[in-house]
Amino acid sequence: MAKIADTYFRTDPWKIIEEGFDPAHARVSESVFSLANESMGIRGCFDEGGSADSLRGAYINGVYDALPIGRSYRGIIDHTHFMIPAADWLLTRLTLDGETLDPGRSDCREFRRELDMRAGTLTRTFVWHTASGKALRLTFIRFLDMIRRERAYQRIVMEALNFSGEIGVVTGLSFGLVHEGYGRCFWGETRAEARGNRLMLQSVTLASGQEVFAGAVTDLSGIPCAEGKEALLTGTVLLREGEPRRLDKRCVILFTGRHGEALWQAGLDALDAAEAVSPDEALVAQRSWWDARWATSDIRIEAADDSSESDVAAEQQGVRFCSFQLAQTYNGGSMRHNIGAKGMTGEAYNGHAFWDTESCCLPFYLFTDPRAARDLLLFRYNTLPQALERAKMLDCKGACYPIATLNGEEACSLWQHASLQLQPSTAVAYGIWHYVHVTGDTDFLRDYGAEMLLQIARFLAGRVGRGAQTGKYGFFGVMGPDEFHMMVNNNAYTNYMGKRTLAYAADVLAGMRETQPEAFAALAAKTALAPGEPDEWRTIADGMYIPVGGDGLIEQHDGYFNLPHTEINEIPVSEFPLYDHWSYDRIYRTDMIKQPDVLMMLYLYNASFPEEVKRINYDFYQPRTIHESSLSPAIHSILAAELGKMDEAVRFFGYATRLDLDNYNRNTREGLHTTSIAMAWANIVYGFAGLRSDGERLRFAPRLPERWKSLRFSVVYRGRVIRVRMEREGTAFRLEEGDPLPVVIADRDRTLTREELFIPRP
Amino acid sequence: MAKIADTYFRTDPWKIIEEGFDPAHARVSESVFSLANESMGIRGCFDEGGSADSLRGAYINGVYDALPIGRSYRGIIDHTHFMIPAADWLLTRLTLDGETLDPGRSDCREFRRELDMRAGTLTRTFVWHTASGKALRLTFIRFLDMIRRERAYQRIVMEALNFSGEIGVVTGLSFGLVHEGYGRCFWGETRAEARGNRLMLQSVTLASGQEVFAGAVTDLSGIPCAEGKEALLTGTVLLREGEPRRLDKRCVILFTGRHGEALWQAGLDALDAAEAVSPDEALVAQRSWWDARWATSDIRIEAADDSSESDVAAEQQGVRFCSFQLAQTYNGGSMRHNIGAKGMTGEAYNGHAFWDTESCCLPFYLFTDPRAARDLLLFRYNTLPQALERAKMLDCKGACYPIATLNGEEACSLWQHASLQLQPSTAVAYGIWHYVHVTGDTDFLRDYGAEMLLQIARFLAGRVGRGAQTGKYGFFGVMGPDEFHMMVNNNAYTNYMGKRTLAYAADVLAGMRETQPEAFAALAAKTALAPGEPDEWRTIADGMYIPVGGDGLIEQHDGYFNLPHTEINEIPVSEFPLYDHWSYDRIYRTDMIKQPDVLMMLYLYNASFPEEVKRINYDFYQPRTIHESSLSPAIHSILAAELGKMDEAVRFFGYATRLDLDNYNRNTREGLHTTSIAMAWANIVYGFAGLRSDGERLRFAPRLPERWKSLRFSVVYRGRVIRVRMEREGTAFRLEEGDPLPVVIADRDRTLTREELFIPRP
Repeated sequence: MAKIADTYFRTDPWKIIEEGFDPAHARVSESVFSLANESMGIRGCFDEGGSADSLRGAYINGVYDALPIGRSYRGIIDHTHFMIPAADWLLTRLTLDGETLDPGRSDCREFRRELDMRAGTLTRTFVWHTASGKALRLTFIRFLDMIRRERAYQRIVMEALNFSGEIGVVTGLSFGLVHEGYGRCFWGETRAEARGNRLMLQSVTLASGQEVFAGAVTDLSGIPCAEGKEALLTGTVLLREGEPRRLDKRCVILFTGRHGEALWQAGLDALDAAEAVSPDEALVAQRSWWDARWATSDIRIEAADDSSESDVAAEQQGVRFCSFQLAQTYNGGSMRHNIGAKGMTGEAYNGHAFWDTESCCLPFYLFTDPRAARDLLLFRYNTLPQALERAKMLDCKGACYPIATLNGEEACSLWQHASLQLQPSTAVAYGIWHYVHVTGDTDFLRDYGAEMLLQIARFLAGRVGRGAQTGKYGFFGVMGPDEFHMMVNNNAYTNYMGKRTLAYAADVLAGMRETQPEAFAALAAKTALAPGEPDEWRTIADGMYIPVGGDGLIEQHDGYFNLPHTEINEIPVSEFPLYDHWSYDRIYRTDMIKQPDVLMMLYLYNASFPEEVKRINYDFYQPRTIHESSLSPAIHSILAAELGKMDEAVRFFGYATRLDLDNYNRNTREGLHTTSIAMAWANIVYGFAGLRSDGERLRFAPRLPERWKSLRFSVVYRGRVIRVRMEREGTAFRLEEGDPLPVVIADRDRTLTREELFIPRP
Repeated sequence: MAKIADTYFRTDPWKIIEEGFDPAHARVSESVFSLANESMGIRGCFDEGGSADSLRGAYINGVYDALPIGRSYRGIIDHTHFMIPAADWLLTRLTLDGETLDPGRSDCREFRRELDMRAGTLTRTFVWHTASGKALRLTFIRFLDMIRRERAYQRIVMEALNFSGEIGVVTGLSFGLVHEGYGRCFWGETRAEARGNRLMLQSVTLASGQEVFAGAVTDLSGIPCAEGKEALLTGTVLLREGEPRRLDKRCVILFTGRHGEALWQAGLDALDAAEAVSPDEALVAQRSWWDARWATSDIRIEAADDSSESDVAAEQQGVRFCSFQLAQTYNGGSMRHNIGAKGMTGEAYNGHAFWDTESCCLPFYLFTDPRAARDLLLFRYNTLPQALERAKMLDCKGACYPIATLNGEEACSLWQHASLQLQPSTAVAYGIWHYVHVTGDTDFLRDYGAEMLLQIARFLAGRVGRGAQTGKYGFFGVMGPDEFHMMVNNNAYTNYMGKRTLAYAADVLAGMRETQPEAFAALAAKTALAPGEPDEWRTIADGMYIPVGGDGLIEQHDGYFNLPHTEINEIPVSEFPLYDHWSYDRIYRTDMIKQPDVLMMLYLYNASFPEEVKRINYDFYQPRTIHESSLSPAIHSILAAELGKMDEAVRFFGYATRLDLDNYNRNTREGLHTTSIAMAWANIVYGFAGLRSDGERLRFAPRLPERWKSLRFSVVYRGRVIRVRMEREGTAFRLEEGDPLPVVIADRDRTLTREELFIPRP
């Protein structure tokens, strides 16, 4: 855990601020200053491009291309897909006295970049001093419309500081962006038109055949030109000294599933509609959207009198940055998308969504925006056909959800992950259970959840084995969440999650059969459910092997306890990450684990295990974990807090909120750890407020870290907004909306109402 | 074991005969009619090429090229190498009345092809009927010189049956052969010259930079032409009805490690030398070479009166074919080469040598040609630097020998094999021990063996782990010989081979230190041997975990006994081979095993285990083995014979000798199972004669199958030739050369002399 902050941005409660431009941090800044509106995302790259180090990335959620990766054995994918850079709508060139602005080379001073998390805007300003002695203040503002998701806005404000005269401006759109990793552009034949102050492009991805329309309408008057994959407008703007001059560009990026002329026409219509709204009006609406969002999702932290105010201010900023990025990346605007491990902030991980969605991100949405949680699960429903197909590839029935995907197909080319990790499927089942348990949305269960559960249970029932010696059921040849052990048998996590999934699926179907016989009959017919199947699932669930010792210590998998011990504190820091410094095979044969496995299960089904079991397993596994997954520390922090190990809880919390702001993993340049930062929210709400949502009632067990004076947040729960204010003296709970709610606080039954309930610290 | 013969060739004691040409068998025939002389090999393809299905393959031992395969994790290779087709020296085109001979399309009758195993010649004859009504008998004869390994001979005999007139002939050399698997030619810039009746080419491989000279001198008079990668001679031959006309082409293929002009000059000299010998003289020498070879390696089988003579004749032919192919592929002419799994008979397995060399092929050479056995081990010595490098890649010290290689570098791109299988290294150690044990060649041990053993032991000592619970040493995260289980712990085979290797290495060094202190000091200095290292090896060997139960049943690896059971007889035959029909991951999670693992260890260290242990393990593992390795049945047959299970022994022997002749695995088209056929020899000598070479003395335990009247073979042993004649009534032993030899026959001490010793059947 020798991760060290690389402090670069200024601390501010609502903003991320960069003062002065450091080329060495260019890509980190690009990642941190990423904007998104769920439908599309853009890295914080310079509108005007130039020679500074940059990963120019403008992405569209759900837009990808595919490449073959060679055929090997059956059940191993032979092609993969990945998010590709799409339309570059920022394209801008400025020329003054024959000099073209290039922040990487030009003399630019007073550089400042600001991300305003209350408005979702990115503002960059600096003064360009030309070789000819002219000084021009430039301010670039951009935002992606959170309401009309196809719209993007660019504003350039130019103020001549010591001259009057003309500046040359080129503004444009391009489908020519190159995927840096693969070194090529994945856009094919492009229709390009430029007319008056309008630019229009439509292109198609090479292999996946997805069509996208991009259009822009700009204030600039100039000569339109459309050629190849670009549409450009070239003009001049007359500047008068001291009079700021504004140039607005309204863009539309349309990815609808429509093709050809139909898409083109829809694009033109969308452009008309965008032109009818002024950028200022759009900005006002944008702020309102974020105001409403923050009202339910904000977490406020105050520093204790005796602790460092700046440290806590940094944590406050970090927590808001996490919530901001999550809301940008996903808020249920579409059920065609999921949450990429890096959102839409870079090429790393190919834009793929992992099992992190259901295991790590779902709680954030469940308690801040349940509709979005539902839509996330509907993505899995919509991709059930792909999961059925994948199970077939693996010689199984039912549905096997992918380890990594954009479109529902398995995209992970490492067979040892794609074929051996069953947790994506059990995580979907867990997510369904958790969602229904928290929201009470039984309609969802009937219409979508039951079918997914049935197919997942069917897959598990086919994949399970039976120990020849023990006669117990278990999963053989798997990799659990801890990816430092593979091809193991009876991984406790996998067995337990399988057991719960099978039992839940059987329960759900039994319930439906009883109370909704028609829906049940329809589902049984659709899925060709054999009469004995749910019974078989229950038999397997009952006979599932869970390796708990008499003292409650759970063996991670068969033989784990006999693995050679590695003292992880003796591994030199220079050898991390191990994947880069150790021979691949060497990682897999000691008791060192990458991320919580047994502990993950104790976190997910927290209410099902007594404290002593959590304690003995935490004490055993925590010192064996090296946290090469960024979600690992938060899980440990939450369990540490539950077990009263507050120092450890705070230590593990340490970098969770500022993982990317302080570039702890030194790879923020590649993009943000979007799903990991979801765990920062959980770290506070589950960890320090002790929220538990897997028992009969909501539970709280507040444990305020010493360094904080107060912590305030809200959770949305079944039509209520629960306001929580933790202070040193105790915790106040109040319902903002809705009926009284029975909960458990610090192990005692309580009822929350619109009146504040203050529970003094024990 | 539902393998079925595809009977196609005619049975003959010394020949392989094809009568009539069946296009569906074209590639199978090409494989079976492969010729080699250790330095080079050629498939039985038609000299004149044409449209018939063909894998035109002419190979040179040790000539390969390489391709990158993408970087993944540390310790996983990022490029691989593979045998490539080299100079095509058969190139011939015949034209008569404007019609070009193409056996795939032309009217060819009375087709017959014969491989003569006493001469190493391939003869093909047929009558070509042209559209113009002419009939021409053509006979193509080829052989690769077993004495002057750079020489190859082609003879074409043309007899006009119903006309006199001219026939157009093109003969040539080409470096233009395309590797079928990769779809490209791996030969680069080529120097080509044609002068008089001489053709000369020199080319270089694209990535590995190996240079090869190819030259030919021919009887044909014509117009020489050299262009690109070809050198051709185009002429005409006047035929007179009824008068056969012969065209001889003497070729030289030179691969010496020399470059440029030096190689060219050496090539010209070699061509001069070849021209000085008539093909008929060469053929006489060739026959003598084979006579001498057969004198020590032939196995003769007679059918019992009450058994099918044709079945036994087929076995006789099969056994000879095995010995013939082995001697062709390797006979110790060079220690730069090893034995490819498919010899030089096709592209499959990339020409790579596997651990089969030491585990399966070595005994054949040990007892028929010990010098060749030594040279095989010297290949490992010569590639020790690559093995040291490979160990480093795996974060280990010492030497790790490759799973698959041509040049000593690991070429297996499947990390799970390349990184987890330790048996290539322990097999080399076993081979050294076996060689020294059988031959008494302690010079070899001192000069080469000790250094290899030291480095292998060092590797094992670094790779071994120590069970946290048991405190015992063992190998964790490995794949044993049974490739249906991977990433297992305490694989019994690996642990036991490691234990024996470590103990043997320590013993050898201790012996050297005592008796050859100077050699020891030199070795210790060269290898920076720490004083405590051999002691550490002994500690590990003593503390190695060998999972033997009280009843002697050995668990293949930790947890094997609890794996779900698969009833292998219930798997439909249509699902074999499983790699092609089962999802890759599915293969790895049952108790089904691919090939002997525990039984392999009982075979290799046969004298170290009591019969009861062999019996209980045979009875347990045999029904769990599906033999997806072609060496599997022979091992089972040998152990079954030892345990008196003669019916099973004969059943497993069933297809061993005719694996390729009858295309049992339906993949002979890709090439011969060269290393597997080595096991056919062992199957007879170890199986039915009960030879054991791992105890104090040589042991025999003859068990003649009922269907045989007699079995005769010889083994070479420490300067002696032991002639063995097994008959129904008993077995006769006689030394042809050398001093009396104490042996054990049927558990009784005996002494072999020049007088026949007859041991009646008990």
